[in-house]
Amino acid sequence: MADKMRRWTMDAVGRAQLKLAETAIPRPGNGEILVKVSAVALNYRDKLVIETGFGAELPFPFTPASDLAGIVEAVGPQVSRFRKGDRVISTFVPGWIDGKTSGTARHPAHVTLGGLLQGVLAEYVVLSQDWAVVAPTTLNDAEASTLPVAGLTAWSALVEEGKLAAGQTVVVLGTGGVSLFGLQIAAAHGAQVIVTSGEEEKLARAKSLGAAHGINRKATDWAKAVLDITDGRGADHILEIAGGANLGRSLEACAVGGRISVIGLIEGFEISGGVLPLMLKQVTVRGIIVGHRRALEDLTRAVDRTGIKPVIDAEYDLAALPAALDHLERGPFGKVVVRMR
Amino acid sequence: MADKMRRWTMDAVGRAQLKLAETAIPRPGNGEILVKVSAVALNYRDKLVIETGFGAELPFPFTPASDLAGIVEAVGPQVSRFRKGDRVISTFVPGWIDGKTSGTARHPAHVTLGGLLQGVLAEYVVLSQDWAVVAPTTLNDAEASTLPVAGLTAWSALVEEGKLAAGQTVVVLGTGGVSLFGLQIAAAHGAQVIVTSGEEEKLARAKSLGAAHGINRKATDWAKAVLDITDGRGADHILEIAGGANLGRSLEACAVGGRISVIGLIEGFEISGGVLPLMLKQVTVRGIIVGHRRALEDLTRAVDRTGIKPVIDAEYDLAALPAALDHLERGPFGKVVVRMR
Amino acid sequence: MADKMRRWTMDAVGRAQLKLAETAIPRPGNGEILVKVSAVALNYRDKLVIETGFGAELPFPFTPASDLAGIVEAVGPQVSRFRKGDRVISTFVPGWIDGKTSGTARHPAHVTLGGLLQGVLAEYVVLSQDWAVVAPTTLNDAEASTLPVAGLTAWSALVEEGKLAAGQTVVVLGTGGVSLFGLQIAAAHGAQVIVTSGEEEKLARAKSLGAAHGINRKATDWAKAVLDITDGRGADHILEIAGGANLGRSLEACAVGGRISVIGLIEGFEISGGVLPLMLKQVTVRGIIVGHRRALEDLTRAVDRTGIKPVIDAEYDLAALPAALDHLERGPFGKVVVRMR
Amino acid sequence: MADKMRRWTMDAVGRAQLKLAETAIPRPGNGEILVKVSAVALNYRDKLVIETGFGAELPFPFTPASDLAGIVEAVGPQVSRFRKGDRVISTFVPGWIDGKTSGTARHPAHVTLGGLLQGVLAEYVVLSQDWAVVAPTTLNDAEASTLPVAGLTAWSALVEEGKLAAGQTVVVLGTGGVSLFGLQIAAAHGAQVIVTSGEEEKLARAKSLGAAHGINRKATDWAKAVLDITDGRGADHILEIAGGANLGRSLEACAVGGRISVIGLIEGFEISGGVLPLMLKQVTVRGIIVGHRRALEDLTRAVDRTGIKPVIDAEYDLAALPAALDHLERGPFGKVVVRMR
Repeated sequence: MADKMRRWTMDAVGRAQLKLAETAIPRPGNGEILVKVSAVALNYRDKLVIETGFGAELPFPFTPASDLAGIVEAVGPQVSRFRKGDRVISTFVPGWIDGKTSGTARHPAHVTLGGLLQGVLAEYVVLSQDWAVVAPTTLNDAEASTLPVAGLTAWSALVEEGKLAAGQTVVVLGTGGVSLFGLQIAAAHGAQVIVTSGEEEKLARAKSLGAAHGINRKATDWAKAVLDITDGRGADHILEIAGGANLGRSLEACAVGGRISVIGLIEGFEISGGVLPLMLKQVTVRGIIVGHRRALEDLTRAVDRTGIKPVIDAEYDLAALPAALDHLERGPFGKVVVRMR
Repeated sequence: MADKMRRWTMDAVGRAQLKLAETAIPRPGNGEILVKVSAVALNYRDKLVIETGFGAELPFPFTPASDLAGIVEAVGPQVSRFRKGDRVISTFVPGWIDGKTSGTARHPAHVTLGGLLQGVLAEYVVLSQDWAVVAPTTLNDAEASTLPVAGLTAWSALVEEGKLAAGQTVVVLGTGGVSLFGLQIAAAHGAQVIVTSGEEEKLARAKSLGAAHGINRKATDWAKAVLDITDGRGADHILEIAGGANLGRSLEACAVGGRISVIGLIEGFEISGGVLPLMLKQVTVRGIIVGHRRALEDLTRAVDRTGIKPVIDAEYDLAALPAALDHLERGPFGKVVVRMR
Repeated sequence: MADKMRRWTMDAVGRAQLKLAETAIPRPGNGEILVKVSAVALNYRDKLVIETGFGAELPFPFTPASDLAGIVEAVGPQVSRFRKGDRVISTFVPGWIDGKTSGTARHPAHVTLGGLLQGVLAEYVVLSQDWAVVAPTTLNDAEASTLPVAGLTAWSALVEEGKLAAGQTVVVLGTGGVSLFGLQIAAAHGAQVIVTSGEEEKLARAKSLGAAHGINRKATDWAKAVLDITDGRGADHILEIAGGANLGRSLEACAVGGRISVIGLIEGFEISGGVLPLMLKQVTVRGIIVGHRRALEDLTRAVDRTGIKPVIDAEYDLAALPAALDHLERGPFGKVVVRMR
Repeated sequence: MADKMRRWTMDAVGRAQLKLAETAIPRPGNGEILVKVSAVALNYRDKLVIETGFGAELPFPFTPASDLAGIVEAVGPQVSRFRKGDRVISTFVPGWIDGKTSGTARHPAHVTLGGLLQGVLAEYVVLSQDWAVVAPTTLNDAEASTLPVAGLTAWSALVEEGKLAAGQTVVVLGTGGVSLFGLQIAAAHGAQVIVTSGEEEKLARAKSLGAAHGINRKATDWAKAVLDITDGRGADHILEIAGGANLGRSLEACAVGGRISVIGLIEGFEISGGVLPLMLKQVTVRGIIVGHRRALEDLTRAVDRTGIKPVIDAEYDLAALPAALDHLERGPFGKVVVRMR
């Protein structure tokens, strides 16, 4: 093992600040593991953090991104969860093991990898042993790296909180990473999946992944289309990734007793919608922020059991991060992954 | 028993259409009971139905209001749930016994007493035996009549759906009927209750009912005050009766993992608020529309067990309905009840 | 339509009392439907009722069995849920629509078709419109008739109450009707299914239906085998159809936080097991008694969506009921169905 | 601060092995706190561990007991949760923060203070900062020390898992520490509490604490008495501390949809009961093993809010541990506490 590694860092906010530095490989301390990183999945949030800081005080020099898959290269003292050679993925909210997040209304839990904490766009990363779980055995590294945020967000919304069941109808808005995981997780539970997109070609690809119906949201009112498809019954679960005034459409499309999981804010920081459908249909609107470690372990087992293969739109070499961010900007079909090799 | 009775009816929408008619006492059919009405609690919704129709096609000549307490005067054939002499209260959504409401996204359940169905502002009313439950033994008729909508709405939000527990913090907005029930139910479960109002005198009365804190919402930012009172933790449950942009304040005031029950629309048909507090705190926003019969039976038992006494601001004779509606317009402290005597 | 029909009746308890009588076709009353029966699925309980009365005071002359599929031939006055020509299946506990059952500790709900109430082994049956639901469109009549008890019991245990999720491990004991439904429902949700049986050939057939593992309970300790298969983790859900001391094995085989649904009493009226595994693993043991109508509607949707085909071991003509009961005695692989044709 | 302290230790299993040693005061390491112990509440389990080892491999020289209240005297490096001077109580299952316990069917979580881990019967104890929570402000040290096991067990059974609500009926068997907490927690939520005991005088004391009814289990069949008191409805929650064949009585006494929390094993390692009441009433039987840290924090808030005062039957000086164990043997009314002073 060499003693130098490559690592993306920035000394200030802004994409122009990104540089691929050569630094010393860190050493794992008490209860820590050193991971040789193989793949890092990017999230739209990483782009926001790089370009704007996303409201967090970043620890400069700062390394972005949160989702890795790799091999445990060394373990520090008092490490009991892993051994050298274990294949692991990271957790997004360090220390959130199960149940409720910590934090308060005034200070919600907001310490995350690649946010307030250093991220993982490096050839080696040191993590607390509590911040990692064993990777699924049926996925390659690039695929496995997409679980910690995109996979777990969809799983938390639909399964951990949503108690999804066969025969229910699930609507996923768009074809980004979380939405396609939503599609695949819902299909694996025997649910009927409806996908919306502005592009017919993406709808066709979504159907090949198991969606029963595609709605071109540029050609039609998607909420009315959901009512038509479900014979007026509405959708039991909606993955609301857009937010903003789109919540109003989700409230229209939602079934009696249905659930809308708010997982994104593409349309801005303010959501709005009609109060009558919310009340008359007794809809549950639930904010979701990724999920806890136990749910990530459940998801890992489900992936290995059902054969779900995460959808990766493109892989980029570590040095090609800027191109990967451009791809993210264009709106990928599924995930964009950076590979160390 | 006479064969004529008094009954408020209207032949068209509008308060000027209200008239106190004398009509034949109805006879109970198969599975029906005849109730000699003793008290009818009014809800703000009754005022909206009388003045605007509230979107429903009313069956003219139409009798408004939904919440009665009275005595079973006679039973029709095949009635097994009640006997002559039983003291009963009505249910708001006929036929909703337990679990989910019926209805679909296109046609949510909206058939209610005093809405699409005939109401109860009459000396005698015929109900299906399935639309009534035994009245609590510790309440007089006027008090008992307030349970079917105001009491049950607060109970459904906090207990049936909200799983309220001792030590939690509950915020009730205002001092109307539902809010005061929320206060009393929360206090009976060992919760800390915070009440908001624009009038100091109402805050004082709320404290005498068991509220731990009062916030004058005209003098201060109520959401910030909730954070101060809870040392930054926020409220576990908020009874959101205002709606509109006030939802944004509720999202600010809500604890991590907290719940906002949307039960009213005083501020209009559109709700809005920040998506970040919703997501970061993983808040649940839930529309509530009164509740089912089993929950009303649970509430009845809870009232008898805990000694909760519903707060009645004023009682009016049947003939004084217009004055009662004026009182409703002014914003009562608790409930307004019409008495037959 | 003729005015006579065939119907199995008994004037006293005991299999020798069964006779195939010719009686008048009944007429539907208020709120009732007349169903031309096409298929009746038998349950082991029907055999117990016929041979012992099973503790119920039967209304002689009594017709056994509870689960039918058929066509609505005529509707009585005030019927709104169905029209002539609709294809329906029956519900087991009449009037249990959603939520909790009615009844008390002293008098639990025990009024069921083919129990205290008349059963359905006849060419025509009159039912309350509330006691039927629309049949799944993807099943033939024989298949559809197996849903009301066997299908719904497995669904209630695993989905309605158990909140089954992909990646979990489900153990079904034996290969009777409920167990095979449990297998198929679990597989349709992406779960890993383990089946036990005393016959290798049945294990092979169960695997062809989607079971991941089969355990020959005569050749091995099934609870230990479950621990081996799951690498010591245990089963998340166990369909405990045997009862008796077998509960002790289920407690051993159960995962931390797992659930044992007690759905049968083959091994007698007393259950027993170790308290330490119950406590240390925080296991939930839950009694299940079929389920409510809303869950049957959910199951119907799930069947149509996932393509589950109920397993029918044999079909018998109406007149061949005694042979069908003999088959039940031998322990069928899946269901035994009586056909009217 | 001195550098020597007194501490109970044993070099082998057996009460005769207990000795009050003088040892060095330990120093807190990374992430650890040093607690000056003020009070230690004893549990019946401590007696079993001292006398039999209770199946665990004890780390000799071994210090028994798990529940302390005290003051943080010093903090080690990287401690963020506490400061010198904070008043704290311990957690029973170290590292169980929220949600499910860790562990598997083969190896359930069983590492507890005063079990596999060193206990707290000492003047000073070092704990991981994650194994303590802030003590309630309204309790003195002796009272506060009773929360970690007895208080939390009752809270987990009734509130965290049981979702107790006002108006429900709760049965607590006996008047030991867990049962009296169950009584007080249930009463604080507006529930009706029924207590059983073999001594009239204890029943009278239980009533003065808020029990609505007392049943002398030596004079009457307690399950039948519960049915009589509840007018045949049965109990919604039963704290089953006896186990053994008593589970059968609990199943009889339980309401439709009720819950039996199995929290003790006084009557042996095997439980048994009737399967028909379990199934017909759809009862939930749930094993409970104390609870997690988040629930202990919830309980602490509830205690401070409701004014619950734990019932302490007697306090003993540290040196008087043998007398305290004798008291435990006799069956205290509430808790037995050891005080350091």
